[in-house]
Amino acid sequence: MDRIVDLIQCKRRGDELGLADFERLINGYTLNEISDAQMGALLMAGTCTGFSDAEATALTTAMLRCGERLELPDGMRPTVDCCSTGGVGDKTPLIVAPIAAAAGVAVPMIVERGSDHIIGSLEKLNSIPGFRTDLEVSDFADLVGEYGLAFAQQSNALAPAEKRLYELRDETATVDSLALIAASVMSKKLAEEIMGLVVDIKVSKGSLLSGRNEARRLAQLMIAIGRKHDCKVQALLTDMEQPLGYTVGNALEIMEVSQTLQGQGPEDVLGLSVELAARMIYLSDTSISIEDARERANSVILDGSALQMFGNVIKAQGGDPTVLTDFARLPNPAGAEPITSPRDGYVSRINAEDIGRAAVMLGAGRSSPEDAIDPAVGVVLETKVGQQVVNGTRLCALYYNSDANLEEAKQLVEDAFRISSQPPADRELVLDLIQG
Amino acid sequence: MDRIVDLIQCKRRGDELGLADFERLINGYTLNEISDAQMGALLMAGTCTGFSDAEATALTTAMLRCGERLELPDGMRPTVDCCSTGGVGDKTPLIVAPIAAAAGVAVPMIVERGSDHIIGSLEKLNSIPGFRTDLEVSDFADLVGEYGLAFAQQSNALAPAEKRLYELRDETATVDSLALIAASVMSKKLAEEIMGLVVDIKVSKGSLLSGRNEARRLAQLMIAIGRKHDCKVQALLTDMEQPLGYTVGNALEIMEVSQTLQGQGPEDVLGLSVELAARMIYLSDTSISIEDARERANSVILDGSALQMFGNVIKAQGGDPTVLTDFARLPNPAGAEPITSPRDGYVSRINAEDIGRAAVMLGAGRSSPEDAIDPAVGVVLETKVGQQVVNGTRLCALYYNSDANLEEAKQLVEDAFRISSQPPADRELVLDLIQG
Repeated sequence: MDRIVDLIQCKRRGDELGLADFERLINGYTLNEISDAQMGALLMAGTCTGFSDAEATALTTAMLRCGERLELPDGMRPTVDCCSTGGVGDKTPLIVAPIAAAAGVAVPMIVERGSDHIIGSLEKLNSIPGFRTDLEVSDFADLVGEYGLAFAQQSNALAPAEKRLYELRDETATVDSLALIAASVMSKKLAEEIMGLVVDIKVSKGSLLSGRNEARRLAQLMIAIGRKHDCKVQALLTDMEQPLGYTVGNALEIMEVSQTLQGQGPEDVLGLSVELAARMIYLSDTSISIEDARERANSVILDGSALQMFGNVIKAQGGDPTVLTDFARLPNPAGAEPITSPRDGYVSRINAEDIGRAAVMLGAGRSSPEDAIDPAVGVVLETKVGQQVVNGTRLCALYYNSDANLEEAKQLVEDAFRISSQPPADRELVLDLIQG
Repeated sequence: MDRIVDLIQCKRRGDELGLADFERLINGYTLNEISDAQMGALLMAGTCTGFSDAEATALTTAMLRCGERLELPDGMRPTVDCCSTGGVGDKTPLIVAPIAAAAGVAVPMIVERGSDHIIGSLEKLNSIPGFRTDLEVSDFADLVGEYGLAFAQQSNALAPAEKRLYELRDETATVDSLALIAASVMSKKLAEEIMGLVVDIKVSKGSLLSGRNEARRLAQLMIAIGRKHDCKVQALLTDMEQPLGYTVGNALEIMEVSQTLQGQGPEDVLGLSVELAARMIYLSDTSISIEDARERANSVILDGSALQMFGNVIKAQGGDPTVLTDFARLPNPAGAEPITSPRDGYVSRINAEDIGRAAVMLGAGRSSPEDAIDPAVGVVLETKVGQQVVNGTRLCALYYNSDANLEEAKQLVEDAFRISSQPPADRELVLDLIQG
């Protein structure tokens, strides 16, 4: 088994690869000894024939070993992070991190990039004027040491293989393999040297995972990988049938982050953020109950310390913290195009994926890697599922700077809404909790 | 369906792609709008989930359309080519082409490159000092017009997509997909504007196709693709359990080509070459019987006109035709290492794949794309399956210039031979004939 092409052939036949094989693949790929075509073919072969849980674990270890790890100051508070598999309008990581940090958890957060119809936390943070996420590993550690919180993008030092693999998966239609998702998330998060991780797994058409069983399997896989690396993992399965909150965009979502940190956010965003933050607090200190942890999360919102934490970190990372209270300082779009209800009835569906696609089409995300992001644009819902409307009620508005794709985006958004004569059945936001 | 990643996703799910999809993929790939990683992932997805016959045909058409086609002079003789799926020691294309051309068929042959443990006709021809295969399309056509035969390598004009796809398949472990083999061979051969094609499909461990049913399916697929493009295809399924003839290498095989064209070649090489050439002659003129065609093939060997034809073409393409009778003018190796039988008995197996690998290891082929070919080296059998030997009988010899891999190659070759106490059952060389 000495040639890469033989390893690809093995995987094509459905054979199981071992840790040494994955280390060879990942190290070779990082050193450009293995081509994108070979790695793309290997990922596709594994996606088609299946990667085992052992392979997902081995791949994670190989990815983790090929990069640096965060070295936090001695005597640091317990470090716990959270992440989301990515949902439309899901700005919770940017809310949860300051809450947990304000409650005493150290949160070294490597922020996610967007892909497809999902806008990443990285792009949202970058909409804050001056905010820098391209931190040296040592600066990232220093910031976490000083504030208990910092946001960094991936680099050639931290989880370098994951970054390249993610881009490759995005390009080669292999984003939704459970093993690759688990290895991607876990290798990046484990590089932060965390002792706990809370994962928000989005379930629905608007997310990577369309079935609840698949989401559970992903959760269990991440828990198993975490256990191998002394990291306690808890996962929430949450509903993503409609966008989370009201805003979908970059600066637009930062506004909702700020509102939520002030206790004035949408009910779904606030509720989920408190639950995720509480689980982080709980993982950092299991001597308290989860109810106590929820109370701590709520209290740092109420006393303003979570918002203060976010402002301090924005400032420490070169950004303008006044945007949190003065939204005019954020990039603002030139035009707005409202969408109104064509009839009386109830909003019975808002297709999250289509809303996400429309926002990307307006420039909030990238359709291809060389596209520039427009931080100002996006979609803002003015109704949520279950709400009663009449003919002409504003359902949402598209915010844009260029009208190049406006008509197409508008059509997508109009079709994303379903107005029915009967109110829809209630849906739970948190569907399940999976713990090790 | 507007993004390439969506096409890859379709194929991953097992959906069927259409001609427009394949034209988009092939044209985009040729124009570098589609990355190697994307094409590698697409080929792997199709290899895992299966390409339909209709997809193989559409892919062939797309590949054919993206390049130039040979324009032969008006009133040209019927053009028929032959090709082999590639076997160890298989030098028949270089024998068959001069025989058919001497018998009045026009043969515009785009020669194959080697891959894996198979040495290509291209590399064999290049072992003739001065021989040039990098012809302009118009020069290629002129030579065929003048001599009735020419050998050209692929270029950016003739079947450009096939060349890149082949290299990519070689790199990504997708060489043995039936649909990709068929599309590769047929798109290249159809670019020659031939009216007939004889295909030699090698069956065994020493070839791409390990099962006879698979080989039959490939034959039928090539016949179907040919029919769509007014090209009559006949396929022979031939046994490749042991190397064909005695020589495996570049100059070593040219020597055997010459011997066979002089009627003195090994029985298996001569017999198969006459059969393949006869089928080409028959396809060019179906008013005669296949028996008459065999007689014509034999007669141009006997009267020396086939050898003369090869010599003329070598000269016309810049090579030294005297190598055909004075082998000392071919590259010669520095050392020889004989392998002898460890016991009395019968040669019951000579594993073709291992002999091929050993020859490549000695430098006769490329282990990686940047490797240089050593035209002189290889393996020469001195026994064939069925032959009786005693302890110490020379089974074969390794010819080498560097002893870097000699020990490893020797081990492979020793293990390739099996000496049994009982003579092996007889095997047919030609297993089946498939015609449309």
